[in-house]
Amino acid sequence: MISPELQAHLQSVIPSSSRAALRTSVLPALLTGVARVASTLRAAQHVSLAGTANAFGDDQLNVDVAAEKDIRAALAACGTVVTASSEEDPVEKPVVHQDGITKGESQETYTLAFDPLDGSSIIAPNWSVGAIFGVWDGESALHQDPKTRQVVSILGVFGPRTTAIVAVRTDDAPPACFEVGFGDQGKQTWELMRAHVQLSRPPFKARYFAPANLRSAGEDARYMALVTHYISERYNLRYSGGLVPDVAHALTKGHGVYVNPVTAGSRAKLRKLYELFPVALVVECAGGRAVDPATGEDLLARPLEEWDERAGLVCGTAEEVDLVKEKLLG
Amino acid sequence: MISPELQAHLQSVIPSSSRAALRTSVLPALLTGVARVASTLRAAQHVSLAGTANAFGDDQLNVDVAAEKDIRAALAACGTVVTASSEEDPVEKPVVHQDGITKGESQETYTLAFDPLDGSSIIAPNWSVGAIFGVWDGESALHQDPKTRQVVSILGVFGPRTTAIVAVRTDDAPPACFEVGFGDQGKQTWELMRAHVQLSRPPFKARYFAPANLRSAGEDARYMALVTHYISERYNLRYSGGLVPDVAHALTKGHGVYVNPVTAGSRAKLRKLYELFPVALVVECAGGRAVDPATGEDLLARPLEEWDERAGLVCGTAEEVDLVKEKLLG
Repeated sequence: MISPELQAHLQSVIPSSSRAALRTSVLPALLTGVARVASTLRAAQHVSLAGTANAFGDDQLNVDVAAEKDIRAALAACGTVVTASSEEDPVEKPVVHQDGITKGESQETYTLAFDPLDGSSIIAPNWSVGAIFGVWDGESALHQDPKTRQVVSILGVFGPRTTAIVAVRTDDAPPACFEVGFGDQGKQTWELMRAHVQLSRPPFKARYFAPANLRSAGEDARYMALVTHYISERYNLRYSGGLVPDVAHALTKGHGVYVNPVTAGSRAKLRKLYELFPVALVVECAGGRAVDPATGEDLLARPLEEWDERAGLVCGTAEEVDLVKEKLLG
Repeated sequence: MISPELQAHLQSVIPSSSRAALRTSVLPALLTGVARVASTLRAAQHVSLAGTANAFGDDQLNVDVAAEKDIRAALAACGTVVTASSEEDPVEKPVVHQDGITKGESQETYTLAFDPLDGSSIIAPNWSVGAIFGVWDGESALHQDPKTRQVVSILGVFGPRTTAIVAVRTDDAPPACFEVGFGDQGKQTWELMRAHVQLSRPPFKARYFAPANLRSAGEDARYMALVTHYISERYNLRYSGGLVPDVAHALTKGHGVYVNPVTAGSRAKLRKLYELFPVALVVECAGGRAVDPATGEDLLARPLEEWDERAGLVCGTAEEVDLVKEKLLG
C-alpha cells in the first residue's frame, strides 16, 4: 500500500529504532483510517442526522458515526496505540485490538486523539472536509506537555482526491511535514506527493486570508480593522469554513493566514485536543506559527487540563501571525 | 447506471416524445462526462501545469486537459449533440462521434457549451471543484435567446462525493432542478438525491454570503458597504473561490447569495457562455435569480454576440439579489 518512496521518506523522518512502531504500525494504521473514511464518504449519497448528539451536544451526522467506526477499526490493528479518544467520544479508553494483536508489544505506547470528520456543516453541499489526528507519547494526553509529547499529527483532506498532511516531531530527528496522496480505489498506492510541506517567506505574488467567525467582526472593532486591512491590501479571500481545508490551503499554497478570534459575543469553539493541538503541530513543523488569539501565546505552550478546553486560532506564516497579534492584541 | 427512481424523474421532467433524445441520450452522456472527470481527478495525485494555455490565455493544468478529453469522449456516444465548444477550446465545432453513432439520428439537435474543470486555483489544495454544462437547442449558441434556447444545464461537483445539480427548462413541462449522486467506483449507480432543489423564502436560521473578488471592495465603497452590511447582520461567510461549489452551497442550504461585482479596477472574469448562462439557468430553475451586477438585468436577458463575453454575477434567493442590486446600483 505504501509506495517505496513514501516508505523511504518515513524511514528518514523517523530514523530511530526506538520509534519503529510509530513508523511501521501507527502511521500506517492512521493512513488506513483516512483511506477508509474517504471510501465511506464517496459512497454516502445521503447525508442525514444520525438522531444522536456527541458528548459535547453537537448533532451527529450518519457520516460522523461511520467515520468514527472506520478509524477505530483501523486502530484495532495497531498494538502500540493503547488509548484513544475522539471528538465524538471524548473519554480516553483502552483501544480494543483485533485478535492476534498484542497490546504494547514493543517499548512504545501511544495515545490517539482524533476528530473523525471535521466540517459537518459543509458535507451536504459536497465541499472538502477533513479528519484530524494527534498522536501522543504514553497512555494519556491529559496534563502532558504538547510541545514534546504530541509527536505526530495528521490532517486528512477529503476532496476530489484524498490527501493527508503529516507532521512528525520527535527527539531524534528534525521536525518534518509532508503530504501523502491516496490513489483511486482501483490502485491503492499511497504516494509521497510532497516531501517538504513548507510555509515560505515573503514576498508572495498573492496573499491569502481565511477569516473565521467573521460575524463577530461586527461587534469587535479590532477584528473588523484587521479584515479591512486584508481587503485594502488586496489579500485573496479563501474561506470554506472547514478547519482542515482552510489550513491545508495555506500549507499547499506555501503561505496564508487563518484567523479565528474569540470576541466578547462569541465563545471559543475549537477544541484543543482534537483540533488545535494537531493543527498547531502541522503548522509548526511546516515552519509557521499557531497562537491563541486571546493571549498571543503559542497554542502548544500549555498542557490540556480538561477534556473540553477550547480556544480560538491564528495560524500561518510567522509574519502574518505577528501582524494579527499586533492588530488584535497590540 | 441510472437508478429506476432517477429514470422515472427524468421522464417526468422531460415528458415530451419530441425531447426523447435529451432524456435518453444527452443527459446520460453529460452525466457520464461528470463521472469520468471525477475518476480522473481521484487518480490525479500530481497536479501540474500542462505547459500550455487555453484559447483565452489561461494556464492549463494537466487535469484541465484530461477533463476536456473525458467529456469529449462521453459526447462521442451522443448523436444528437452535433456541436460543442468549451472554455478550453472555445470554437463551436462538429462533435466527432464514435463508430455506429449516427449524427442527427432524430429530429433533435443540440449544442453543448462546457467548462470541463472550473476552479483551477483550488485544485492543488484539494478543495471541491466543478464542471459546468449548458445545452442549447440547435446547432449554435451564438445569437440565440438564452431564456428559451438553453434548455438544460448541469453543475457537476467534485468533492468527497461526486454530485450534479441538473436544470431543465423546455416548452412542454415546468422548469425543474434536481440533484444526482454518483455512487462510489465499485457501485456505479446514479441516484436521484433530491427531486427538487429549491431556494426557499425567509426567515432563515442562518444566512450565507459568498463575496467574490473581495479585494475590489477596497476601491469600491458600495461593495465595501454591502460586505459590512453582511458582517453586521451576522451572515455566515462561505467562499471557496470555486464558482460551482459556491453556487452549489446556496442551492444545498436552500438560501444564500453569491456576489461577484465588476468594479473600476477589476475587469469581469466570468464567461457568459461557459459559466454564467448555465449557472443562471440552474439558479432560475431553483426559484432564484441571477443578474448582471453592472446593470441589474437578468443574465439570461441578452443573447451572446461574441464568444468571449464576460460579466460579473449576483445570484441566490430573489430577496438577497434585490438587496445587492439596491446596495450596488440603487
